[in-house]
Amino acid sequence: MNSIALKGISKQFGDTIALKDISLYFEENKIYGLLGRNGAGKSTMLNIIANRLFADSGEVTVNGLAAAENDQAQQLIYLMSEQTLYPESMKIQEVFKWTKNFYPNFDLAYAQNLAAKFGLDTKKKVRSLSTGYGSIFKIIVALSVNTPYVLLDEPVLGLDANHRDMFYKLLIEKYSKSPSTFIISTHLIEEVSSVIEDIIIIKNGTIIKNESCESLLSKGYTVSGKASQVDAFIEGKEVIGIDRLGGLKTAHIIGDLDRCQVPDSLEVTKLDLQKLFIQLTNS
Amino acid sequence: MNSIALKGISKQFGDTIALKDISLYFEENKIYGLLGRNGAGKSTMLNIIANRLFADSGEVTVNGLAAAENDQAQQLIYLMSEQTLYPESMKIQEVFKWTKNFYPNFDLAYAQNLAAKFGLDTKKKVRSLSTGYGSIFKIIVALSVNTPYVLLDEPVLGLDANHRDMFYKLLIEKYSKSPSTFIISTHLIEEVSSVIEDIIIIKNGTIIKNESCESLLSKGYTVSGKASQVDAFIEGKEVIGIDRLGGLKTAHIIGDLDRCQVPDSLEVTKLDLQKLFIQLTNS
Repeated sequence: MNSIALKGISKQFGDTIALKDISLYFEENKIYGLLGRNGAGKSTMLNIIANRLFADSGEVTVNGLAAAENDQAQQLIYLMSEQTLYPESMKIQEVFKWTKNFYPNFDLAYAQNLAAKFGLDTKKKVRSLSTGYGSIFKIIVALSVNTPYVLLDEPVLGLDANHRDMFYKLLIEKYSKSPSTFIISTHLIEEVSSVIEDIIIIKNGTIIKNESCESLLSKGYTVSGKASQVDAFIEGKEVIGIDRLGGLKTAHIIGDLDRCQVPDSLEVTKLDLQKLFIQLTNS
Repeated sequence: MNSIALKGISKQFGDTIALKDISLYFEENKIYGLLGRNGAGKSTMLNIIANRLFADSGEVTVNGLAAAENDQAQQLIYLMSEQTLYPESMKIQEVFKWTKNFYPNFDLAYAQNLAAKFGLDTKKKVRSLSTGYGSIFKIIVALSVNTPYVLLDEPVLGLDANHRDMFYKLLIEKYSKSPSTFIISTHLIEEVSSVIEDIIIIKNGTIIKNESCESLLSKGYTVSGKASQVDAFIEGKEVIGIDRLGGLKTAHIIGDLDRCQVPDSLEVTKLDLQKLFIQLTNS
């Protein structure tokens, strides 16, 4: 089966353990959400896959090829990251051409079309872009490279809501027409939840969840009401977090919900992905 | 009445009109969302209020005092913005002390308490902070200054979901204990919608909405279903946007909803603030 496979990947920076013995598959033609708090190890993982960092131990393979120091494997991967690797004095249209040299399937016409849609002037130099347009420029390259695996590290940083909405729609459109694997690392979890199929949550360098978005969401719910009634209801259940406001209490619960069990005085709502994430990763 | 009042404020940068004849009140003890796309004029407005930019015409007053070049008025205002005004080599604990010199009501003990909560090491220098911790550091100062008006320009930039959640909770807690005016400019519109009371939407330098969040949200809804049925339903209604997916159509509508009018085959949902914003500000 074609995939990116991580086997026993560990990485340490000085005394800080960034990744602890990570084993993981990213299958072909799937959209993944790689979620974690600041410093959890997401970027380290993506950088190791894309050969920008070396693991201390373990191995990454891409469709069976060793990923480290291997151009043949790296041609299958594109990583959009916060650091810009292009010369800052290059014009955007030059970057497009330059990218096509390394990624022959880069679709120049599509990239120019996207630039027009986002209102990005391709005659501008990379260094002249604002944070938002810097992200837009990198999103456009990522959507146009046509590699089997596209890794997006914080793709929507600095984008306004309209441009984020446009990006999510373009991603789904692109994926529907010609499926490939997208791995999206983002802090805007609720927004991305309608785009991603599988979720990988990383906490302190360890994978704590790896399952479908649908399955994860089906297991969480929230109960609110008078503190005493909430306390009675949650006894014996797996409570992952509690909020208090005056005499009221809200409990976030993992487990199957039997609606018949819930007294009328308590309000039950679905736990959304962002709230679930916060509860699972709070220290 | 105490307020920040803008009267006929205009500002141009070269050929670009940033603000066009803006008149507006920010009342005391209210939480405002100042929303707009990248480049709409939000930061320009906040910088004119805080005396960091001069208006080409018009006047800003703070509790009746002229805001421009007036320390007495500026002591009533704190602006948290993307640019850091502190010397980059200063340690955070030094910035806290320095802030207290200009804002005598700055609560040092509270700031230190918040730093501990967010895991911010106050012995670090300003320049050593990541984007996320740079925002956290500035949020802490803004929540501790105790001026009647606090202006927050993109306060949650780079924060993970847990820290954003913590910030919104602290803001509400602070506001409940000692009310003051907060003006929050942000691109994370859906998240902030539960925190803000009034909404000001700015588009191309002009105010297009200025009303309570509740009132704005009560007027919008979304109808989805077969394209032909949606088309029949929306005839004569104020449609602010349409999405298509295959033979299905989703229409976003402004107006009162009469549920009896809606055929069973169509699905009606509330329009959330972010979707409403996107529809109102798309060009």
